[in-house]
Amino acid sequence: MIHRLTLSDVLAEHARSRPLVTAVVDGEVRLTYPELDARVTRLADALAARGVAAGDRVLWLGRNSHAVLELLLAASRLGAVFCPANWRQSTGELAFVLDDLAPKAVVWEESEAAAPLRGDDWILMGAGYETFLAGGSGGSGGSADGDPGGTSDPGGGTGDDTGDDTGDDTAPVLALYTAAFDGRPAAALLSSAALVAHSVSLLVVRQMEPGFTFLNSGPLFHVGTMMFCLATLQIGGTNVFTPAFDAEEVCRLVEAEKVTQAFLFGRMIDEVAEANGDGRYDLSSLRFVSHSAAWDAMTTVDDSPWCRSKMGGYGQTEVGGMLTFLGLAPGAAGPAGRPSPLVQVRILDPDGREVPAGEVGEICARGRSLFSGYLNRPELTAARIRDGWHHTGDLGRREADGTITFVGPRLRMIKSGNENVYPAEVERVLKTHPAVADAAVIGVPDDRWHQVVKAVVVLADDAGPVTAEDVAEHVRARIASYKRPRHVAFVEAIPKKGFTPDYDALDAAHGGGGYPGG
Amino acid sequence: MIHRLTLSDVLAEHARSRPLVTAVVDGEVRLTYPELDARVTRLADALAARGVAAGDRVLWLGRNSHAVLELLLAASRLGAVFCPANWRQSTGELAFVLDDLAPKAVVWEESEAAAPLRGDDWILMGAGYETFLAGGSGGSGGSADGDPGGTSDPGGGTGDDTGDDTGDDTAPVLALYTAAFDGRPAAALLSSAALVAHSVSLLVVRQMEPGFTFLNSGPLFHVGTMMFCLATLQIGGTNVFTPAFDAEEVCRLVEAEKVTQAFLFGRMIDEVAEANGDGRYDLSSLRFVSHSAAWDAMTTVDDSPWCRSKMGGYGQTEVGGMLTFLGLAPGAAGPAGRPSPLVQVRILDPDGREVPAGEVGEICARGRSLFSGYLNRPELTAARIRDGWHHTGDLGRREADGTITFVGPRLRMIKSGNENVYPAEVERVLKTHPAVADAAVIGVPDDRWHQVVKAVVVLADDAGPVTAEDVAEHVRARIASYKRPRHVAFVEAIPKKGFTPDYDALDAAHGGGGYPGG
Repeated sequence: MIHRLTLSDVLAEHARSRPLVTAVVDGEVRLTYPELDARVTRLADALAARGVAAGDRVLWLGRNSHAVLELLLAASRLGAVFCPANWRQSTGELAFVLDDLAPKAVVWEESEAAAPLRGDDWILMGAGYETFLAGGSGGSGGSADGDPGGTSDPGGGTGDDTGDDTGDDTAPVLALYTAAFDGRPAAALLSSAALVAHSVSLLVVRQMEPGFTFLNSGPLFHVGTMMFCLATLQIGGTNVFTPAFDAEEVCRLVEAEKVTQAFLFGRMIDEVAEANGDGRYDLSSLRFVSHSAAWDAMTTVDDSPWCRSKMGGYGQTEVGGMLTFLGLAPGAAGPAGRPSPLVQVRILDPDGREVPAGEVGEICARGRSLFSGYLNRPELTAARIRDGWHHTGDLGRREADGTITFVGPRLRMIKSGNENVYPAEVERVLKTHPAVADAAVIGVPDDRWHQVVKAVVVLADDAGPVTAEDVAEHVRARIASYKRPRHVAFVEAIPKKGFTPDYDALDAAHGGGGYPGG
Repeated sequence: MIHRLTLSDVLAEHARSRPLVTAVVDGEVRLTYPELDARVTRLADALAARGVAAGDRVLWLGRNSHAVLELLLAASRLGAVFCPANWRQSTGELAFVLDDLAPKAVVWEESEAAAPLRGDDWILMGAGYETFLAGGSGGSGGSADGDPGGTSDPGGGTGDDTGDDTGDDTAPVLALYTAAFDGRPAAALLSSAALVAHSVSLLVVRQMEPGFTFLNSGPLFHVGTMMFCLATLQIGGTNVFTPAFDAEEVCRLVEAEKVTQAFLFGRMIDEVAEANGDGRYDLSSLRFVSHSAAWDAMTTVDDSPWCRSKMGGYGQTEVGGMLTFLGLAPGAAGPAGRPSPLVQVRILDPDGREVPAGEVGEICARGRSLFSGYLNRPELTAARIRDGWHHTGDLGRREADGTITFVGPRLRMIKSGNENVYPAEVERVLKTHPAVADAAVIGVPDDRWHQVVKAVVVLADDAGPVTAEDVAEHVRARIASYKRPRHVAFVEAIPKKGFTPDYDALDAAHGGGGYPGG
């Protein structure tokens, strides 16, 4: 298997090739690649002692931390699967994840929602995690021989990875829960091979180089931040972690660590620009897409294809992040671009035939960065991966110049903040309220969140007095708070098309709009 | 197999995504990606009709042509293996290749050396090749229905590639003969997966973008030119072909096609600069490494990592081209740099143990771009690929900063022009001369060729009068002309170390030097 390259292999090579490069910065923590490699080896040993073996799952419930990257790399070293889950979910949603994932080890940050589910053996982020890691036998930090962190290993501290192990880079290593088309979240499984392939596509389009420093300022349970974290690892750059987005802290870290790129979009960029309104932080290391006069003046406008005109493209968790890039289609009309160099894309009709250019069909993909299916969901996997192609569930169109335009989800989706909200899931919760006879959910434009959820509700004949607040609180108590209705309209009846709500009519009557791709 | 990506798949996607982009320019020939795709489909059909099936070999004997790329892509479509061989070899060397490769189809350019070997069914480059291709049933060009080149296919002319085929991207698709460590050339087999991986590593380091235009001005039977041809294909750029290097023609093509990069090095660059001494050609599209004041003034100095300081790194055919890049090690002391993002490198002692930083060992590699072994040479393959690592046969050293310095070949090699010459091969031929009792070969520095071959010869006691010209001609008639001695010294005895020549003593006595890595 001379062709193998797992995430663990990538780290091992960096430990050899970049002994002096800072891999990770997180508060007081600063680790070179050999130091990170030695910690990952110890962590893998500690997890193995806990019973984690190839194929087993490890769960992270918490905010951003270098521990997320360490756990992913340790999982790769063991052939296990790491899942950073959305800690902002409700207790019920977290219970579903625990049941579905059945993790052999859980590392968590104290939180109200997770506390009722806590197992005796859960590892608490911070000191608890350090104690757990120090118990591993892979290197220093309490080991009997006092070896100072593998630095005495002439090969660069790669520990007992002799290169003769049988790691499989096509086995899943990362599980990311994706939003619920059918009302139940599903964990998309991504292999080392897919993640490495996606990373190099980002290296190509973002023109990442040695010295690239990424500030993980978005949540790592989303592919949007994770994909840049991994691409930064791939090129041997520096990953800086901050627990969650805070405009002032972003300014401080960009200056202190000479950050090249941070996970920022839309309103977050404005907040950072405002926080640095007096220019007291030097943000010039940040190479970013042009955004506003104030922002462009304090940062460096980047000329890579990723940033050259409009940033981005089309993607989803199931393709490892990005499937198409605007940067590969200079001058493209639509908001999608051209495929990454490592994938193929076809626009198919419901019978699996390629539709002519100019017509809308489902965006289907194959190639190196694609996922391996969903955990525990053979039917859903079979529904999405058919005839050798992944069916994204999104609609698109080839233009005459071959570029792809993202039209919108095949099933209706609301985009609130950076979160996907599926009406079906919220409607199901609404209908569990005793006073609700029927309900439909639409998205309405919002200055801060791009869209927010609006519920259109029919009350039962025998219902007592029910307020909009009652309805919203009913949802908030059961699923993630960003899914709760910010607006509620009470109506006599929901317009229908067959058995499903007539969403176009509801949008027209209740101010809906701003849907992704629209 | 949603993760598959063969070279044929790359072409099929470009035909969809880049219908208006010029894929190929070669004299009067200009092909868009859909046109190239349609021709490749027809060519594959014609080859299949000739009996070429998965695993079979197709041989090219000729100078550069777009047909080289077409044959490689058609081989990929069929699961076959394409070999562009060195047409500058002697009849005897070509006979060895024919015997070793046992090709099912040969496309050739009329040449003195190949003529005696010609088979009845050999396809002559040019009109013969066009007639052969037109006989394929994959599209237009003589097909009964008069379909104009697949352009009526709404999917972009991908012909009957439904995406449901069972192509294996880990199967060999390209065979490149490498120089003879043991006196016999061996064909390194490279898969689509390896070639695609190598291409993206070049995309990353060279920061290739849409619109990249590469002039294939070096021989395509060498990985040095082929790797840029394939990277240009990968990013959907334009490949321009010229039969062989000619300074004036390079100037003309750079201006006419707005070439971004050409295969030029050392003396070739000076010749191009001289040919454009009066500045009558606009070469400003060429983005190149800084070379000389005259050159820098007529081209654009490129700032990508590939060109930023010194160009290059360390590589060989068996790793797909480049293994390490100077561009990934800004400020590196030695001439090698750091590994591509898709490989691992270890410096091993003869027992397979990693040597400490600062010590010399054999450069060993594993990862996505590596070859699959040698055709018909299981012993050689087993000798080179051991314990999961490819042993390059080259010596290197890790520096304290983790960068790799290429020290030189484990076995002595002469670099003449861009060609590798192994003393053992030339010595073997010398010793077949009836007047030669013993011989050794060294490299001596040369202004034009970097090194040329010098033979140190002991004549037999009963030898008649023999001149240096006699000796050189004896070699020239039997192996490639660049291997012939340009200098001959007659001596009484060859100094030995055990059974082998004492090359250091020979170098000292006869002006040897300039060896790669020295």
